[in-house]
Amino acid sequence: MSEKKIPYKIYLEESEMPKQWYNVRADMKNKPAPLLNPATLKPMQFEDLRPVFCDELIKQELDDTTPYFDIPEEILDFYKMYRPAPLVRAYFLEKALDTPAKIYYKFEGNNTSGSHKLNSAIAQAYYAKKQGLKGVTTETGAGQWGTALSMACSYFGLDCEVYMVKVSYEQKPFRREVMRTYGASVTPSPSDKTAVGRKILQEFPGTTGSLGCAISEAVEAATSKEGYRYVLGSVLNQVLLHQTVIGLETKAALDKYDIKPDIIIGCAGGGSNLGGLISPFVGEMLRGEADYRIIAVEPASCPSLTRGKYVYDFCDTGMVCPLAKMYTLGNGFIPSANHAGGLRYHGMSSILSQLYDDGLMEAVSVEQTAVFDAAKQFARVEGTLPAPESSHAIRVAIDEALKCKETGEEKTIVFGLTGTGYFDMVAYQKYNDGVMSDYIPTEEDLAKGFATIPKLPGIQ
Amino acid sequence: MSEKKIPYKIYLEESEMPKQWYNVRADMKNKPAPLLNPATLKPMQFEDLRPVFCDELIKQELDDTTPYFDIPEEILDFYKMYRPAPLVRAYFLEKALDTPAKIYYKFEGNNTSGSHKLNSAIAQAYYAKKQGLKGVTTETGAGQWGTALSMACSYFGLDCEVYMVKVSYEQKPFRREVMRTYGASVTPSPSDKTAVGRKILQEFPGTTGSLGCAISEAVEAATSKEGYRYVLGSVLNQVLLHQTVIGLETKAALDKYDIKPDIIIGCAGGGSNLGGLISPFVGEMLRGEADYRIIAVEPASCPSLTRGKYVYDFCDTGMVCPLAKMYTLGNGFIPSANHAGGLRYHGMSSILSQLYDDGLMEAVSVEQTAVFDAAKQFARVEGTLPAPESSHAIRVAIDEALKCKETGEEKTIVFGLTGTGYFDMVAYQKYNDGVMSDYIPTEEDLAKGFATIPKLPGIQ
Repeated sequence: MSEKKIPYKIYLEESEMPKQWYNVRADMKNKPAPLLNPATLKPMQFEDLRPVFCDELIKQELDDTTPYFDIPEEILDFYKMYRPAPLVRAYFLEKALDTPAKIYYKFEGNNTSGSHKLNSAIAQAYYAKKQGLKGVTTETGAGQWGTALSMACSYFGLDCEVYMVKVSYEQKPFRREVMRTYGASVTPSPSDKTAVGRKILQEFPGTTGSLGCAISEAVEAATSKEGYRYVLGSVLNQVLLHQTVIGLETKAALDKYDIKPDIIIGCAGGGSNLGGLISPFVGEMLRGEADYRIIAVEPASCPSLTRGKYVYDFCDTGMVCPLAKMYTLGNGFIPSANHAGGLRYHGMSSILSQLYDDGLMEAVSVEQTAVFDAAKQFARVEGTLPAPESSHAIRVAIDEALKCKETGEEKTIVFGLTGTGYFDMVAYQKYNDGVMSDYIPTEEDLAKGFATIPKLPGIQ
Repeated sequence: MSEKKIPYKIYLEESEMPKQWYNVRADMKNKPAPLLNPATLKPMQFEDLRPVFCDELIKQELDDTTPYFDIPEEILDFYKMYRPAPLVRAYFLEKALDTPAKIYYKFEGNNTSGSHKLNSAIAQAYYAKKQGLKGVTTETGAGQWGTALSMACSYFGLDCEVYMVKVSYEQKPFRREVMRTYGASVTPSPSDKTAVGRKILQEFPGTTGSLGCAISEAVEAATSKEGYRYVLGSVLNQVLLHQTVIGLETKAALDKYDIKPDIIIGCAGGGSNLGGLISPFVGEMLRGEADYRIIAVEPASCPSLTRGKYVYDFCDTGMVCPLAKMYTLGNGFIPSANHAGGLRYHGMSSILSQLYDDGLMEAVSVEQTAVFDAAKQFARVEGTLPAPESSHAIRVAIDEALKCKETGEEKTIVFGLTGTGYFDMVAYQKYNDGVMSDYIPTEEDLAKGFATIPKLPGIQ
């Protein structure tokens, strides 16, 4: 046991910060299944992906053997703007819960995008700039990813075109304004700027849009003009790679004070935060160096890991993207309308899906009013208003700490606090007004989603 | 010159953090003029203030000789939640400006209230709790102070009643929801809960409220029931005392790396942030130990220092509060309707007013589109979306850095970044849409405000 006094917030010094990202696939015996070309059903090759993604990012996407990638100097420079992110001992929460558990959280919300998304946005913008591109396109739902990308593009002087789901564009004007302040052009989707957008508008004139449609528009926009590529904020291997800066910093901070976590908890939508947080710890497990309980937390209304199928599915509802093998509810699955808390993607990163299938990770689903109960409790005692997404992890961290209270165990719990809830006050208002409700999909709901999973002759 | 490498962000260690607040009045030869009882025109005594304020806070308010006040352990504990605030070297901004100046900013926005207001809110809540009170009342305009107070009251289990200017209550529902999440009751003002509110509603049925009216309601609410007191987020001596934690941390961080600032810049509304930031530096000037250029920045549309009169005036438009001697535009002065950027108080803290009158501080006024130009530039290169209030200081810091570019001088500039702009996106939207305008009050506008300054026989 170290004699070092553990501060309330552990900030790494600049010299202690990670200089490389860690590629957990290199240590996985069962590699994540490759992306498939939907036309040929063969694994996607470098050349197949070049029209859509930046070259360096494709290399990262396809590389499942190189354990470490150097983080370019330019990205390390940018990291200085908002990193290191603190690892905080939740003393106030422990006291409020009267638990013997020791709770730590890695806080990724200390930047204007308000979340961890900036970690990958800056990397993707960097490689786009390095390739000499003019700009990038993307989709955004609630707006966290779009905000992060607009910040990153502004930094490198890249054009940034964001297709924002129309209902969010109208209901979340503030996110939109942050993106505009950073110079991004924000288009409500579906739009008449793309063929796919015009087609959808013709078929469904009153539609408020969907993430799947916005992806399709962003991909078309990127591939139909010179000097643009498409970028994505979650799910992909490259995104998880960039996000390992979260886990590497967390591990460095824990190691500095000889703290050994028992349980590591993260919320899971597409998997970017969870994958980034747990990768270095899972690496130790894969190499037989340590053992941890790792818990993925997902909404009961969008339970891809706990109730989905582990099969090949399209990453988007427009079916223009490659096929990925993942735990999925079907690309046509849409969470019930009362769902307020984010994490609404139908599938789960291939890396995390494989780790889950191999038993290296548990998954639990939680209902949203319980999530907001945890969010409120956390906000009141720890002083940070958490994003609804992050609050899924808080819920389970509190539950585990309360179990420790029952048993008297002094477990060390680490969870990822991915972001702040400043742009989610509509959801908080519903909660404060007592009109937030829960919905657990019925078997019939799930069957409808599963029906949209493609039948792939010879594969599934 | 120290050999220590200066990190991008200077975080003090817990052991280096201030344990006392500094009372600059103790070093002032010309003391700030005392508050006057409006009924007797005699200086307010402890007993006069007891029905309105907490006992310990009155002692701090009236004490102009004790140089240091110990910060109670309970407050130091709470500080750990969000302090130390980083002192950041604005490398990215310097590079963008191509200036030889070295720019630092003290960032106070890393907490859910989004501003420095929490520093005094937690102190005022602590003393209310210590006195055995049930709760406190206050007013809020834009909502920063109300949010900070609701967080502080939640922490100590105090009831928190916030009277929020009706127009803000309706136009800033998200701030209101943050306060509700922290358990505060938020009432649009004027309301039918108080006699003064009912009177105003009867006289002006369609009124959207004013800060002055909200103050009057909050004071009435506090004084008309057992176990409540009124608290205020700026202007008062006690508030500036608590806010010196900003300046003390800033000075400790600078001293740690042997950095000597040439210019210290802060935005000025009622003076809470500016007073807190500059007090320790002004103390050195008063004691003849150092010399600095200190610049207060105010909006051209509410220019209390640069165009106001240094006289006794009411702190509120309802004229229920004591008289304070300060630079004032008259308690009836209201900034023009196009004013978006905060800092709309008609007067200035008595401490700062005296320092300004004694020539220890300069003041400049800036127009709001220029302020938002600076805000956008800062957000894009430094990654933090600043509050409009804070952006007044950014504007002048940039201007001073550009002067250094002209002259080639390597001046060290320190400014206060008081908070974030996440709840100010309506103002940013106006700016992004190009519909933000400037307004400089005419002599006639000012004359109308000055006409509301009371004539006080034998005094002025």
